[in-house]
Amino acid sequence: MALSSNTVRVALMPGDGIGTEVTEACASVLEPLARRHGLGLSFDPLRAGAMAYRDTGSAMDEATFARARDADAILLGAMGWPGIRYPDGTEIAPQLDLRFRLGLYAGVRPIRALPGVPTALADPRAAKIDLVILRESTEGLFAARGRGEVIEDREARDTMVITRATTERLSTFAFNLARRRAARRGRPGRVTLVDKANVFTGFAFMRKVFHEIAAQHGDVVAAHHYIDAMALDLIRRPWDFDVLPTENMFGDILSDLGAGLVGGMGFAPSADIGDGHAVFQPSHGTAPDIAGRGLANPTAMLLSAAMMLDWLGERGAGESWSEAAAELEAAVDAVFATGLRTPDIGGNAGTAEVARRVAERIGSSA
Amino acid sequence: MALSSNTVRVALMPGDGIGTEVTEACASVLEPLARRHGLGLSFDPLRAGAMAYRDTGSAMDEATFARARDADAILLGAMGWPGIRYPDGTEIAPQLDLRFRLGLYAGVRPIRALPGVPTALADPRAAKIDLVILRESTEGLFAARGRGEVIEDREARDTMVITRATTERLSTFAFNLARRRAARRGRPGRVTLVDKANVFTGFAFMRKVFHEIAAQHGDVVAAHHYIDAMALDLIRRPWDFDVLPTENMFGDILSDLGAGLVGGMGFAPSADIGDGHAVFQPSHGTAPDIAGRGLANPTAMLLSAAMMLDWLGERGAGESWSEAAAELEAAVDAVFATGLRTPDIGGNAGTAEVARRVAERIGSSA
Ligand SMILES: CC(C)[C@H](C(=O)O)[C@@H](O)C(=O)O
Ligand SMILES: CC(C)[C@H](C(=O)O)[C@@H](O)C(=O)O
Repeated sequence: MALSSNTVRVALMPGDGIGTEVTEACASVLEPLARRHGLGLSFDPLRAGAMAYRDTGSAMDEATFARARDADAILLGAMGWPGIRYPDGTEIAPQLDLRFRLGLYAGVRPIRALPGVPTALADPRAAKIDLVILRESTEGLFAARGRGEVIEDREARDTMVITRATTERLSTFAFNLARRRAARRGRPGRVTLVDKANVFTGFAFMRKVFHEIAAQHGDVVAAHHYIDAMALDLIRRPWDFDVLPTENMFGDILSDLGAGLVGGMGFAPSADIGDGHAVFQPSHGTAPDIAGRGLANPTAMLLSAAMMLDWLGERGAGESWSEAAAELEAAVDAVFATGLRTPDIGGNAGTAEVARRVAERIGSSA
Repeated sequence: MALSSNTVRVALMPGDGIGTEVTEACASVLEPLARRHGLGLSFDPLRAGAMAYRDTGSAMDEATFARARDADAILLGAMGWPGIRYPDGTEIAPQLDLRFRLGLYAGVRPIRALPGVPTALADPRAAKIDLVILRESTEGLFAARGRGEVIEDREARDTMVITRATTERLSTFAFNLARRRAARRGRPGRVTLVDKANVFTGFAFMRKVFHEIAAQHGDVVAAHHYIDAMALDLIRRPWDFDVLPTENMFGDILSDLGAGLVGGMGFAPSADIGDGHAVFQPSHGTAPDIAGRGLANPTAMLLSAAMMLDWLGERGAGESWSEAAAELEAAVDAVFATGLRTPDIGGNAGTAEVARRVAERIGSSA
């Protein structure tokens, strides 16, 4: 992307359930933030998801897809609803279509302990958790999506695909990300590939390609780790890890595990990034149990929006975008540091209250 | 198996590294226990593993395999060693060959908080963790072991296979296990299939077959859960789960995650059970970093041996075997409840000391 004009156009897809609530809360924070930093930011609201499917027969029609594709970035709430499914029983998840159709190979899922938010672990070092699960998001086991076969009601097959091209891009992305994080955090970057190379041909191949790319990034430490050992180490010493690239299915699992460590899905932002496009969305789902009640924690959405501003800044929108991103993230940290507690961590600050507190903080830190 | 004589013959495979140490410790506990309960138990020591491969060119030769196969049960320490690999770079893991060749589809991996052993979680309810990861161990993604392909150094493929026959057997095993646990624990059993049926054909198939079997076991609650949500819930509320059947690769990941919750791999026993054979072994590896120093925690091995005695009792060896199993497990619990700490949880009780304490406890609880 070369940003096309002074105004950045963000496709806004609230989706279903609490997706719409956290999107609204997020917009209410982004608007004053944009004003304050002089960002030319416009939203293009688009309808997609399970309710769209129910009402129109299409979860994301082609005109909607085209507008999302042509936007400078896509900000998405959450999609899907129990009971509303495709005829084959699979989930209504247009976010997966966006990943595949726009080639968003890099699923960036930061796992960071926020000041004041209790972690799940007894060890106090957990307050230092600050890592990124980098989930490959266009192939791996998910290459089988819509392609698996059942033979005579007797046997089912799904094929995992790992390509050199995508592994090279993902690895390069990982080293660049680690380098940027190292600069910000003032300590050396470290990239640890998570695989199962001791058993599978595909993962042995992935590890080989990863280390070829690692050889071009001597300033960042490169390592690898088995997926089972990583699941254990994310419990025993998550504070030791930095950037963790991995296969699609493994990344899906590890990112939820990681979110569980730092307060749950309400605190887990994400970005799906490709060479020309990017989708930003909280890692959580539509939470039918609390939808419509103003209880959803908008933090993951706010942090996803911060990732979007930062990405736009990096892509050429200008430094004020990165500054706005940093300010938004700092404001979120600050309100939790004061002891704010959302319902998912045992408090009663609802969606609107969190947004209001974050917006106030931004306004006051001039 | 119909147990062939009054003497039960156990194939004993210490393996490599700390495998040999925990096996020796375990034998030193089993011998007095067997005497005390009048169990006819004989050990047939067999050599297999990475060192066997290094010295003989075979990780488990056919004569050894045949003796293991013909034994009443197999008790295994741990196998593998860094730097000793098959020519294709994969790990020396004859335990995987045993699973496949003997059809050991049910990988039983109990995750239980032992009294006195600190859990990783801050929530005090973690002391009540008592669940079983039931890892399918002969197919799933592991069906691709040795069969994956790399096409022109460009793309790799591994195919996950899920069959009706194995899913039926695994599901039946799960419900029977839950029923037995319910009787022992005095509360209703609950089986939760862990899958990714919202995306993959194979997992939708697995879920369908699972619920067909569930319909035959109305006394046990049947549920299903997505793998990513389960990774999260094993952090947030592991005390709510009971028996968790799942695909091979998922089970590999979840069982390490679970072990991390309750003190690590040193406390994680396992059994790989088929219709005619079974292997019992701790879930941990050979731990090259501490091997040969008497520091290995033998608890997982002792608890695996207790699972073996219980299984033998159930299979017809007689009630005194199940009683011995219960006594061994109770003795392990009792010594940790007194505050014993192994090096892996910050203490200094070595391999021999744990074994001695457990043996003493058995002797004194007459
Ligand atoms: C909704 C689901 C299909 C999706 C996935 O598995 O990718 C979600 O779990 C995620 O992590 O984004
Ligand atoms: C050694 C390795 C191949 C093995 C596996 O993945 O099955 C181990 O991790 C296990 O869990 O038994």
